[in-house]
Amino acid sequence: MIQAGIITIGDEILIGQITDTNSGWIGQQLTERGLDIKLKWSVGDDADEIYEALANVGQKSNLVIVTGGLGPTRDDVTKKAICRFFDTELYFDEDNYAWMIKLFASFGRAPLESHRQQAFLPRGCEVLLNKLGTAPGMLLEKNGVRYLFTPGVPYEMKEIMNTSLLPQLKKWYDLPPISYITIHTVGMGESVIAAQIEDIELSLPEGMSLAYLPGTASVRVRLLAKSVKGELVDERLETLACKIEDKLGDIVYGRDGANLAMSIGKLLESKGKKLVLAESCTGGNVAHLMTSNAGSSRYFNGGMVTYTNELKMNLLDVDSEVLREKGAVSEEVVRQMSESAVRKMDGDIALSISGIAGPGGGTEEKPVGLVWMSVSDGQRTVAKKFNFGKTRTLNIDYASICGLNLIRKFLLGSEMK
Amino acid sequence: MIQAGIITIGDEILIGQITDTNSGWIGQQLTERGLDIKLKWSVGDDADEIYEALANVGQKSNLVIVTGGLGPTRDDVTKKAICRFFDTELYFDEDNYAWMIKLFASFGRAPLESHRQQAFLPRGCEVLLNKLGTAPGMLLEKNGVRYLFTPGVPYEMKEIMNTSLLPQLKKWYDLPPISYITIHTVGMGESVIAAQIEDIELSLPEGMSLAYLPGTASVRVRLLAKSVKGELVDERLETLACKIEDKLGDIVYGRDGANLAMSIGKLLESKGKKLVLAESCTGGNVAHLMTSNAGSSRYFNGGMVTYTNELKMNLLDVDSEVLREKGAVSEEVVRQMSESAVRKMDGDIALSISGIAGPGGGTEEKPVGLVWMSVSDGQRTVAKKFNFGKTRTLNIDYASICGLNLIRKFLLGSEMK
Repeated sequence: MIQAGIITIGDEILIGQITDTNSGWIGQQLTERGLDIKLKWSVGDDADEIYEALANVGQKSNLVIVTGGLGPTRDDVTKKAICRFFDTELYFDEDNYAWMIKLFASFGRAPLESHRQQAFLPRGCEVLLNKLGTAPGMLLEKNGVRYLFTPGVPYEMKEIMNTSLLPQLKKWYDLPPISYITIHTVGMGESVIAAQIEDIELSLPEGMSLAYLPGTASVRVRLLAKSVKGELVDERLETLACKIEDKLGDIVYGRDGANLAMSIGKLLESKGKKLVLAESCTGGNVAHLMTSNAGSSRYFNGGMVTYTNELKMNLLDVDSEVLREKGAVSEEVVRQMSESAVRKMDGDIALSISGIAGPGGGTEEKPVGLVWMSVSDGQRTVAKKFNFGKTRTLNIDYASICGLNLIRKFLLGSEMK
Repeated sequence: MIQAGIITIGDEILIGQITDTNSGWIGQQLTERGLDIKLKWSVGDDADEIYEALANVGQKSNLVIVTGGLGPTRDDVTKKAICRFFDTELYFDEDNYAWMIKLFASFGRAPLESHRQQAFLPRGCEVLLNKLGTAPGMLLEKNGVRYLFTPGVPYEMKEIMNTSLLPQLKKWYDLPPISYITIHTVGMGESVIAAQIEDIELSLPEGMSLAYLPGTASVRVRLLAKSVKGELVDERLETLACKIEDKLGDIVYGRDGANLAMSIGKLLESKGKKLVLAESCTGGNVAHLMTSNAGSSRYFNGGMVTYTNELKMNLLDVDSEVLREKGAVSEEVVRQMSESAVRKMDGDIALSISGIAGPGGGTEEKPVGLVWMSVSDGQRTVAKKFNFGKTRTLNIDYASICGLNLIRKFLLGSEMK
């Protein structure tokens, strides 16, 4: 296996001022090409720490990607560590400075002295043009290990990786074939899923593996084939994925890049149906999830957030007697909400949700986390009760995902399972 | 300085299948309390790698926080490494299993064998109850270095950190005095803000510093005093913060833990006013932001997501002639929407938003990112145009924040500045 390591440089990552999304992206790109990501270190803007990271991560890797520490106000520390580690010195790169002048001219400006400093580069490095910024990528080698340095700005890092590194990997290394299929599920816990497909997992051939990646009320199951010999790997993977999907049944909503709201959108579109919503405790989050995807106006008419009892009565004709007797969080109320939402918003199918998000408002009989939801198409109406028993944010998130799932199952005709 | 290290365990982080937000949060919490975050390692689900990380990160730290690697399907690898490193063995923790049974009973279920395995814990560890999940936190010590292990699920990790670790830090360590005030602003860029308060920044005394933390249409300005001697640090910090707030004027909406929706909630509550919403392109996200805070029912009645022109006409009485002539993304339409929303939802103040989120739907005259919004109290109505020109997700986020800000400024009587 070709091993890769990642180093991110910068105090702002260590102290949590920014979230490091670079190393995740780099990890994905390298993994997809068959490299094995062995470790990732984050260090601050400190020459000794950077030196040590280069030495240690390099010892375990064939390729090390280093991001950050190259901005105009701070690249001296990083470059000092680079020169020491590669036993070299800085030189002024005329070509790079000329590029910088050209880049600044395109904004009608001239480089500052701090930018000019960025044209000092370690002698012996291969300079990789950064079309989107002033700090170039730098490729160096020591003891047979390649090191790529890029700025930390995500789009600049990606540009340099895409242009100058990723296309080279196959030339540099003998990479193993790698394939995977990710199966997206919703509404069942990781351990229950694992138990259901235990026999498949136990009989996986050498080089194939399963991983469970839990999310909010959802789990992704990833089937991976790495270094598997033979020409039929993809077919065998496909066969196994189908076996898993058969076993898991309708908790599966998609593969690979799928997302739940979008898969519901596709179902709605294929049936020519328009969705409408009547939300209470989720406060618009289901509408937000449905409209996060481009093209949602093709299958989403709109929704109401009826947070007060008055709006439930005035906008959705919920019976005041029923509200008083059963309470806003009840089967009767969510049924009236969904049935009425279909009519009022000219929809083909409606989801309604009413619950106690918390932290206040709970009682012994109706605790925080209790959520009733209902789906109706105007003819047929179903209702379901959940008890998430979590914090406010999580109750909202779980209710939203389970609500989406109830729409999905209603459309599939399997909602009461 | 008390040094802290962070270790995240899990192949899914290395290969970029999930973005690690845990270590950023941990970094923030520890930094705010005066610890120095020295390094962060990410390793895969591999006992040798975990062992090595524990040893190496421990060598540079007084405190090591380890997250991940404790789920029901994979904790054996992590626990193996823990037992080897701390020279101990697993025992079955009856108390923890009893807790698990109780937790599952509240969902009407029973733990599986894989959950039961989670009750095997390394002998000698202090067991930290995880109120939100099955894997407890574990505190161990070696060579005077404390190690906290938590599950990787962010809310479980935070719960354990908040309950069992952060309150202990002052007892364990002699931490340097650290004070800070974070000033939250919205609606102005980082460089403009920096220019406005440049004189204050340049004259800061030794040990005090300013940092700019940009977010969506917003910037947090953090004023920090670290290891500053003298008893009047907090007073001096307060004086400086007031100077900055005076200079920045009404772009400031709060301090420290403030969030924009909550600060609007407080404004509404203090004026005894109820907010209602009429959203189109933001698709419910403004309602979601307003209802994310506990107690929002005290000042939020509800909202409508009128995604189609039909719903704009049927629910909000928008004039069909105006819609045809001016289009849904126009000053006239958002004015009608906000005025009508106040009436229809019995509100005191309404925000309406209509725009082109993209990626489709743009024209030369009305490009992707164009957003009109309006606020009305039924008597007075204002409207404002924005052109965010970003991707769909960002256009929705920016429109939501700027919409909230328009409500805020309307309530303050400064909306047209």
